[in-house]
Amino acid sequence: MALNNPNPMGPWKITVYDQENFQGKRLEFTSACQNIMECGVDNIRSLKALQNITHMTYRENIWAGYEHSSFCGQQFVLERGEYPHWESWSGSNAYHIERMMSFRPICSANHKESKMVLFEKENFMGRQWEINDDYPSLQAMGWGNNEIGSMQVQSGSWVCYQFPGYRGYQYIMECDRHGGEYKHYREWGSHAQSFRGRRFYQ
Amino acid sequence: MALNNPNPMGPWKITVYDQENFQGKRLEFTSACQNIMECGVDNIRSLKALQNITHMTYRENIWAGYEHSSFCGQQFVLERGEYPHWESWSGSNAYHIERMMSFRPICSANHKESKMVLFEKENFMGRQWEINDDYPSLQAMGWGNNEIGSMQVQSGSWVCYQFPGYRGYQYIMECDRHGGEYKHYREWGSHAQSFRGRRFYQ
Repeated sequence: MALNNPNPMGPWKITVYDQENFQGKRLEFTSACQNIMECGVDNIRSLKALQNITHMTYRENIWAGYEHSSFCGQQFVLERGEYPHWESWSGSNAYHIERMMSFRPICSANHKESKMVLFEKENFMGRQWEINDDYPSLQAMGWGNNEIGSMQVQSGSWVCYQFPGYRGYQYIMECDRHGGEYKHYREWGSHAQSFRGRRFYQ
Repeated sequence: MALNNPNPMGPWKITVYDQENFQGKRLEFTSACQNIMECGVDNIRSLKALQNITHMTYRENIWAGYEHSSFCGQQFVLERGEYPHWESWSGSNAYHIERMMSFRPICSANHKESKMVLFEKENFMGRQWEINDDYPSLQAMGWGNNEIGSMQVQSGSWVCYQFPGYRGYQYIMECDRHGGEYKHYREWGSHAQSFRGRRFYQ
């Protein structure tokens, strides 16, 4: 899978461990990893998403982790910080398979410039709603029901969540993937009820 | 326990069920419930946090749920929306006891007016940092380590989370509880790594 990574050497840096609590085999990455098994590790059980200090400009360090190799399966947004076990990055325990096999940096926009349009029906039809801020509840922002038909990411990257309050499954939506167009819930995985624009400091 | 609820009849409304997926015995509340067992229900297994439509003014409907009676134990912030099972409101599965026994409305401030000061050490000592926006990562906002010594909520209500990205245990911090002062991590329960000001629309 070809990755459209405009800056493969940073500002990203991630350290992963094959045991919980930052124990066991330790590997460092500054760009995407398509299959951790190719690095001699059977699974990622803890990690640290760090600032790459070789970069003088302070920029945000955000990664997306995936359940399967080649960036497939359940998605996990990894903000900068330390994650001692699977529960610390997973927002859901309904589907409890403790596996992270691939990861990649997310290209973000300045939080204030992130913009997305939600549509009531698939294929960008029906009522529409432009959002440019975080919304912990779809219903509280004025949306009539629990479902989104389609979405168009116009700027930046967004994280959508299965349940209100940024809980449950996570779905990463990016303006530079699929041309920012998510025509049907199959294209992001399921339904979403809360939205969070990605921040990017520099 | 006396509750300082300035508006006991609304705008809050919550419907709870004693079975998952909105099944079983159903109860409606417009104010706090100190012990659900006193209503003949052994546990809450699904719920809907709804807008109270008898109020013409649109205001946000936010509740705090608790693991034990009398608002004790693990805390769960309940944004407006539907929660079909325990996993949908819990942000952590490290301590997996599927219990919600009491709940109460949260008094919020306008999101833009929410303000909190973080202190490096307990008793409001050491380096301090004023925040008035959501921060998904303590480290990314410039905080040097993973821990907060003490916190002072100057306006509104905040939700602090154990892990970055609004995951793990939730800690509700309110300006009208403890006088907004949380001197030691024992007073909020544990360490926190991300912060989210409560929104309030009207």
